[in-house]
Amino acid sequence: MSSFDAMYALVYEGPGKPVWKQVPKATIQHPKDVVIKTVATTICGTDLHICKGDVPAVQPGNILGHEAIGIVEDVGSEVTKFKKGDKVIVSCITSCGHCYYCTRNLQSHCNQGGGWILGHKINGTQAEYTRIPHADYSLYHAPTVTPDGRPVSDKALLMLSDILPTGYEIGVLASNIQVGDTVVIVGAGPVGLACLVTCLAYNPARVIMVDQDDQRLAASLRLGATDVINPQKLSTPSGLREEVYKIAAEANQSRTQPGEVLEPGADVAIECVGIPRTFEMCEEVIAPGGRIANVGVHGSKVDLHLQELWIKNIGITTGLVNAYSTEDLLNRILTGTLDPTPFVTHEFKLCEICQAYEVFGNAAHNCAIKTFIQA
Amino acid sequence: MSSFDAMYALVYEGPGKPVWKQVPKATIQHPKDVVIKTVATTICGTDLHICKGDVPAVQPGNILGHEAIGIVEDVGSEVTKFKKGDKVIVSCITSCGHCYYCTRNLQSHCNQGGGWILGHKINGTQAEYTRIPHADYSLYHAPTVTPDGRPVSDKALLMLSDILPTGYEIGVLASNIQVGDTVVIVGAGPVGLACLVTCLAYNPARVIMVDQDDQRLAASLRLGATDVINPQKLSTPSGLREEVYKIAAEANQSRTQPGEVLEPGADVAIECVGIPRTFEMCEEVIAPGGRIANVGVHGSKVDLHLQELWIKNIGITTGLVNAYSTEDLLNRILTGTLDPTPFVTHEFKLCEICQAYEVFGNAAHNCAIKTFIQA
Repeated sequence: MSSFDAMYALVYEGPGKPVWKQVPKATIQHPKDVVIKTVATTICGTDLHICKGDVPAVQPGNILGHEAIGIVEDVGSEVTKFKKGDKVIVSCITSCGHCYYCTRNLQSHCNQGGGWILGHKINGTQAEYTRIPHADYSLYHAPTVTPDGRPVSDKALLMLSDILPTGYEIGVLASNIQVGDTVVIVGAGPVGLACLVTCLAYNPARVIMVDQDDQRLAASLRLGATDVINPQKLSTPSGLREEVYKIAAEANQSRTQPGEVLEPGADVAIECVGIPRTFEMCEEVIAPGGRIANVGVHGSKVDLHLQELWIKNIGITTGLVNAYSTEDLLNRILTGTLDPTPFVTHEFKLCEICQAYEVFGNAAHNCAIKTFIQA
Repeated sequence: MSSFDAMYALVYEGPGKPVWKQVPKATIQHPKDVVIKTVATTICGTDLHICKGDVPAVQPGNILGHEAIGIVEDVGSEVTKFKKGDKVIVSCITSCGHCYYCTRNLQSHCNQGGGWILGHKINGTQAEYTRIPHADYSLYHAPTVTPDGRPVSDKALLMLSDILPTGYEIGVLASNIQVGDTVVIVGAGPVGLACLVTCLAYNPARVIMVDQDDQRLAASLRLGATDVINPQKLSTPSGLREEVYKIAAEANQSRTQPGEVLEPGADVAIECVGIPRTFEMCEEVIAPGGRIANVGVHGSKVDLHLQELWIKNIGITTGLVNAYSTEDLLNRILTGTLDPTPFVTHEFKLCEICQAYEVFGNAAHNCAIKTFIQA
């Protein structure tokens, strides 16, 4: 392989540390493909799971990563929306744009070879070049300046690949947040924080972040949370419920008639961790009429306390991001009403990606939220 | 007590058989009350639970029942919508009409003394007379003839007290049934059948009723189900899933492009039993993008298999009926597009109500769906 046909990429070689190595350069394989040259990529918690061997669909030899911004390098003959040199956001969800699922905003279940495939079923974005199938519906044009002439941060654009639409669609839109609501977000990692920053436009009365990591709770307060709770610091098992009930009762005073008392609890609870205990926290704090949105990736079943919840008129939603909101969120960034740049806590060069994995793999110790890995 | 001040009523006297006895006649206690003279009442599965002692909120001495049609006998000074002599449907849900919950279609959580109170927290409808609080928002005018001059069946009107709005709101509306959907209804009792007859207007492709009672499955077919499954007759534990997958695959052929195959399963699963196994049946059969509506009253927790469901983009809803759909359903009866009269399988005189409890308490043996108990 000549260096002209080769590139460097981070390759999963089975459970353990991935390897930064030379591999064949990504090429067009289908007329709807685009090949992008990476500008920046980042690491998702899912990538860490893959490296542990928790995602058996990922075969050894596969390039990792499903988030990136890049420059169009090569274009298949049936691509209509992009040309060489365009700057683009790569969505973590590949969409054919036409199937039953893609036409119902369920692009994560695209049955024409789409869904979450990058760094999963096909080579991913933690590489110098990446092939993007169904490019017309899986890439987004990335402006370099706003309509009023301000530069657009690459850090902000990179957050549109996955965490912003994930938090917004699966956490915020699914839970139908109303003005004056009390919102509890369990888990203040990248996706929990994405829920936080994208929900504020709905003017909830209170947004309570719950996490065991005080650094992440401090970041939550900087990003707009009104309240934070570290459950490890509560003295009783019912402490979380009591704290949330107290905060919601304060919030509800502003939307009830004098003397009217609402049933206790949060209107919305968003699960962003993926373990049984954190899902049960959502069940514990939810008020009648409330909505629980599960964003976390779960490896085991949870107890659903229907003996208490059947009468509460609640809703529960689950899901993988569909990325239909990417352009809406981009517009919020361009108008200055959404700024995800503080999510980036650490920067690396692409050739330092193994070091970035070390840092992100010990996120709590390193106060890491998102890495920005520049090519 | 003179007979002028007395009436007969079915009284809960603690766990065991309720007693048909003379009690003080219902009277106006608040300016918003109406007292109705019963025309007909019926028995709900919940009444059987109360008699077993499963609903501790019901105090000995309380009159049972939350379903009735009647004639207005006496009217409080602040009642504006009803006058003596009006024929009315009594809703199982009492609503003040003005509180936070009542103005958000969560009347079951009315915090001004409403919600499910009849035969629960105050005296109920299995009596010659019943006091209805907040009458303006808790009773509905019951026409005796349709706009085109046909008589309106009392049996049909009685089904509007509880089971029709319960099935429609908590099963059908909550699960957002779309044209061409495959719908599974687990439990072909009165509420499951109410889901069935009220969902047909949404033109699902298939409605599959699941029950262990072949008589109820036969009734389901007469009422419009396209398919029935008796899980006791399946040879393998995965048999239900396989049957539903097969039926849904047939249904999906009419809404996909040639060669396009959808992920397997039902679009909607409605739980109308209230035990863990039947809720898990709903989890087993649901397709990506599907909705599970829990209508059953549960006494214990269930396993929620989030390890499979997190990625499926599903919704789960729970709830007690709010009865906001009562007038819509009445209009469907008046226009002849909904006919719940076949739900009534047994008729009794009010003084025979204890016999009606015997029959309804052994519903399977007696092929009973709903009783019609006439005063």
